[in-house]
Amino acid sequence: MTLRVGVIGGGQLARMMIPPAIELGIEIRVLAEAEGMSAALAATAVGDYTDLPTVLAFAREVDVVTFDHEHVPQAVLRGLVEAGVAVHPGPDALQYAQDKLLMRSRLASLGVPVPVWASVSDAPALDAFLADNGGRAVVKTARGGYDGKGVRVVSSSSEVADWFSALASGEALLVEELVDFRRELSQLVARRPSGDVTLWPVVESTQRDGVCAEVLAPAPGGSSRLAPVAAQIGTTIAESLGVTGVLAVELFETVDGRILVNELAMRPHNTGHWTIDGSTTSQFEQHLRAVLDLPFGATGHTAPWSVMVNILGGPASGDLDTPLRAAAAAHPTAKLHLYGKPPRPGRKIGHVTASGEELDEVAYVARAAAAAFDS
Amino acid sequence: MTLRVGVIGGGQLARMMIPPAIELGIEIRVLAEAEGMSAALAATAVGDYTDLPTVLAFAREVDVVTFDHEHVPQAVLRGLVEAGVAVHPGPDALQYAQDKLLMRSRLASLGVPVPVWASVSDAPALDAFLADNGGRAVVKTARGGYDGKGVRVVSSSSEVADWFSALASGEALLVEELVDFRRELSQLVARRPSGDVTLWPVVESTQRDGVCAEVLAPAPGGSSRLAPVAAQIGTTIAESLGVTGVLAVELFETVDGRILVNELAMRPHNTGHWTIDGSTTSQFEQHLRAVLDLPFGATGHTAPWSVMVNILGGPASGDLDTPLRAAAAAHPTAKLHLYGKPPRPGRKIGHVTASGEELDEVAYVARAAAAAFDS
Repeated sequence: MTLRVGVIGGGQLARMMIPPAIELGIEIRVLAEAEGMSAALAATAVGDYTDLPTVLAFAREVDVVTFDHEHVPQAVLRGLVEAGVAVHPGPDALQYAQDKLLMRSRLASLGVPVPVWASVSDAPALDAFLADNGGRAVVKTARGGYDGKGVRVVSSSSEVADWFSALASGEALLVEELVDFRRELSQLVARRPSGDVTLWPVVESTQRDGVCAEVLAPAPGGSSRLAPVAAQIGTTIAESLGVTGVLAVELFETVDGRILVNELAMRPHNTGHWTIDGSTTSQFEQHLRAVLDLPFGATGHTAPWSVMVNILGGPASGDLDTPLRAAAAAHPTAKLHLYGKPPRPGRKIGHVTASGEELDEVAYVARAAAAAFDS
Repeated sequence: MTLRVGVIGGGQLARMMIPPAIELGIEIRVLAEAEGMSAALAATAVGDYTDLPTVLAFAREVDVVTFDHEHVPQAVLRGLVEAGVAVHPGPDALQYAQDKLLMRSRLASLGVPVPVWASVSDAPALDAFLADNGGRAVVKTARGGYDGKGVRVVSSSSEVADWFSALASGEALLVEELVDFRRELSQLVARRPSGDVTLWPVVESTQRDGVCAEVLAPAPGGSSRLAPVAAQIGTTIAESLGVTGVLAVELFETVDGRILVNELAMRPHNTGHWTIDGSTTSQFEQHLRAVLDLPFGATGHTAPWSVMVNILGGPASGDLDTPLRAAAAAHPTAKLHLYGKPPRPGRKIGHVTASGEELDEVAYVARAAAAAFDS
């Protein structure tokens, strides 16, 4: 009788699905890549997510399969669907989160605003794009990029010669204009198989070295002008691509006031972690509701402002107990989240959220509590 | 390096400690009474909590031992302490939650306001108390009472003849005046080994058939007059009895305006479930912080009002999926909590909390969402 959700991948996103599963009385099972991962508490299997028999054996024990990441190959996803497994998001939607060229071309055909882009399969094509677009551009591998990996800003095709030489026949790189953006935004959406769509307020995110560092929720000054535009874009993409579960649409707000789609993620997203503490329904709870086709929870914020700051790297000593005590002592209103991962330079090992009436105060608390882990 | 908490008992209180343990990066392990209990996800052992070797083997793998319930025998608790295990709350405190006669006599000696009471070991003593106190009184067994069990309202000693005949030598029953109360209140407190005490606002609770049915947080009309009295009582008890962890002090507000202590619980308590959704720090997170001697989180409420309604019994069909969908569809702002327990008449199988600006509206949502499970 108990609803059972199976999550492929044992990282922190799977980990953060465990609390709402417990609260809703849902059984959660995780197929982890290895022992001792972030979501180890719910790991009922350890195995290779690129191996269909392994994934199928896991899927047989649950009502629906969903994901901690977007790396499960299409062949495995389609094998699951053919075997009658409920997979959310499904392969038809997930392909757009797995292949940036496919995503760009589909969004462009939907009329969603995107940066100037091209598919380039050789150096002359890229140099021509550079000549037409101010001499600098962003080149991305179509697949496998994540947290700044697979992305380079270049002024000559020679800077991605290694990528071109690694391309298989028929493959290409994505090149995009170097967008002159004022800031980055993120629109979080959830859609369930029966079609309902729900949205959280659009947020502002700050990246450092290609990794999300901080999120202000809602985006300051964004409510009247930006919010309807971002909501429209998010809804269009979720519906047109048939996304089920949580969808994050990363956006640029350009210096000349345009909103352009940067990237898509079809899973709970770092820019939505604030919802655990700052929204009536967190992105993790909503994702579970979505993939089980349960009616959605309310997405209003519980305080005027929430600020989320990532804990990146962590203390060189590897000791998390001391900074945890220091952060707790100095910042009793800060919500501290640790992912059960050993510290390592640049690694996302946790985050802090603070919520309240005054943005400056809230941002101070979140930043200071996160900084306690930098020592 | 990871802090490890061991919880003895696998019920819903242990279950509800899992989410904050995950968020804080704390490893939680549960010694459950049986397979498939509420806290099964974190159960690393199944065994008899009255058997010292079983409990000791479990305790050796964690940094601190705490509890889902108060039924672990003193001999086991003291055996743990003698073996060097950190036990919170410790046996010296827990004895007052395990033995109501001991509790009453200790509270009376502390000058805390309590109902008129006596220790009675035979029928004539009880009849004398009845004659002195209006002919009716509440009789309680000193040990083993829970959710209305071990409590009888009597007008003659003959109504507890079975309890008297079961008394061992030196044992007695507790008899108390039948308090003419206007309402029941509860003061939730947390104290950590280093001495810090923190309190949530005093709440109003409604019992049905001796079981908590509903909680209004904070207690309506209670902020100015009641709050300081309840806080003083809670702090005095926590400090004088050396409680570590969460302490719930159940109180009577009498029709003539007195505040009297009814019962104590030294663990997270049903009257504190609203804190999961309605306070910056839940009682479950605070209990973990307390037993690990971590600095406390803030205990302010995140909305003016929260109302918690228990789901008692559940649908006769045993099907929880249908009411879960119905409650979610009709009440998107309701926070739904299910304990992973099969429905059974009178059993606490979950609760609903709603929070917001207007008490009437919030109470309506919580009651209506909980009622969806009554069908």
